Amino acid sequence: MKTLVVVSHPDINNSQTEAFLKKGSEQVDVIWHHVESLKGIDVDFERKLIGSCERIIFQFPLYWYSAPAGLKNWIDKVFSRNYVYGDGQYHLADKEFGLVVTTGLAKKDFQVGGIESMTMDQLMAPYRAFAHRAHMKILPLFLVDQFWYKTESQQQQLLIDYQRYLNQDFPDSLANRQAWFEKRLEKFVDGLDEADGKIGQLILDTYQQQIDELDQLNDTLKMIKEGEDDSLE
Amino acid sequence: MKTLVVVSHPDINNSQTEAFLKKGSEQVDVIWHHVESLKGIDVDFERKLIGSCERIIFQFPLYWYSAPAGLKNWIDKVFSRNYVYGDGQYHLADKEFGLVVTTGLAKKDFQVGGIESMTMDQLMAPYRAFAHRAHMKILPLFLVDQFWYKTESQQQQLLIDYQRYLNQDFPDSLANRQAWFEKRLEKFVDGLDEADGKIGQLILDTYQQQIDELDQLNDTLKMIKEGEDDSLE
Repeated sequence: MKTLVVVSHPDINNSQTEAFLKKGSEQVDVIWHHVESLKGIDVDFERKLIGSCERIIFQFPLYWYSAPAGLKNWIDKVFSRNYVYGDGQYHLADKEFGLVVTTGLAKKDFQVGGIESMTMDQLMAPYRAFAHRAHMKILPLFLVDQFWYKTESQQQQLLIDYQRYLNQDFPDSLANRQAWFEKRLEKFVDGLDEADGKIGQLILDTYQQQIDELDQLNDTLKMIKEGEDDSLE
Repeated sequence: MKTLVVVSHPDINNSQTEAFLKKGSEQVDVIWHHVESLKGIDVDFERKLIGSCERIIFQFPLYWYSAPAGLKNWIDKVFSRNYVYGDGQYHLADKEFGLVVTTGLAKKDFQVGGIESMTMDQLMAPYRAFAHRAHMKILPLFLVDQFWYKTESQQQQLLIDYQRYLNQDFPDSLANRQAWFEKRLEKFVDGLDEADGKIGQLILDTYQQQIDELDQLNDTLKMIKEGEDDSLE
């Protein structure tokens, strides 16, 4: 799967969060596309880029409850009505649409009764309306909140979650997660030299065995859960 | 009351809807401020302009479910966090905040089950979140849908409603509507020459008499309504 990450940040070189995410994105197969760095917007080029990808992600810091002006400018220029839904032609149809939003506030601030009184999903309504109109598949939002308050291990976890958001299959099920990790592990083992490679292969074999066991455990758990009080009998 | 109408339209000279609204705005006491016409954004000047007005309105055609990039650029530049709510200072507090949105779709398209599946209020969530954070008073949205499908008399009605939205007191009660009309009628009569002025004064007197009668009728109606089936006894 090919993913286009349309990044908007007017001062990206001074954003350590964006630098961190960019580094993470380089380890997976995506196109990092920073709109404020473009010298003018070549609509044909942008549409070819979009056409070559199955997943389109808008990534930005929250500026007054939406993307910076740079992304809106890109959207207004690249997406004409005709291109998105004119004459019954849906050029973006069935592509996946995701949002990566970074914010200095905490996730809990975005809820009824919180500082912002609105949820992030409510604020993202215009993007969702766009994806809906374009017949795209909408992915759950990926929130990066208060990045610099996170511990190093939380940041590492975030990085993995971010990489999975960029190119793991959805839904984010155990099976899809396993498949994604296995693929990355295989790639890693392939890159090792002969001596390390043997140990690497051993790790891979063990991992695959564990997955089989996990699958069985998961089936059992599912059956138990379905029998619980909350379920419809 | 002083009203600032922050208008965003990248091609305003070719918009007949905007021309129509602009002409209407000239008959009431507002500042028409087209952001795409500005040569750069002088933040201090913009803030002084805002500071001098009690009602701030964002007016724009719906481009992919929000304002054109030009307005977002203006917002991102003019409103710093410090200006809006930093250090417990709320520079926009208690000002009224309105939205005038023009769209080629019909109002009924914006509802669950409609073409857009979302309401205009849902789409405007980011602006409402902004006004909420700034401690502004939020006015109901003013929608101009399918302007060019309207008959001439519908357009005239729209123009009056638009003018009232710009500088009539809220809420949009009968009393506030009457006061607004009366003020405009007085101004009109004042502008007449002596011969027409006498007739004008007669119209004004009749209008004021009718208002008194309307007030009485309204009180009676209110009492009847309160006694109806749906009301709590």
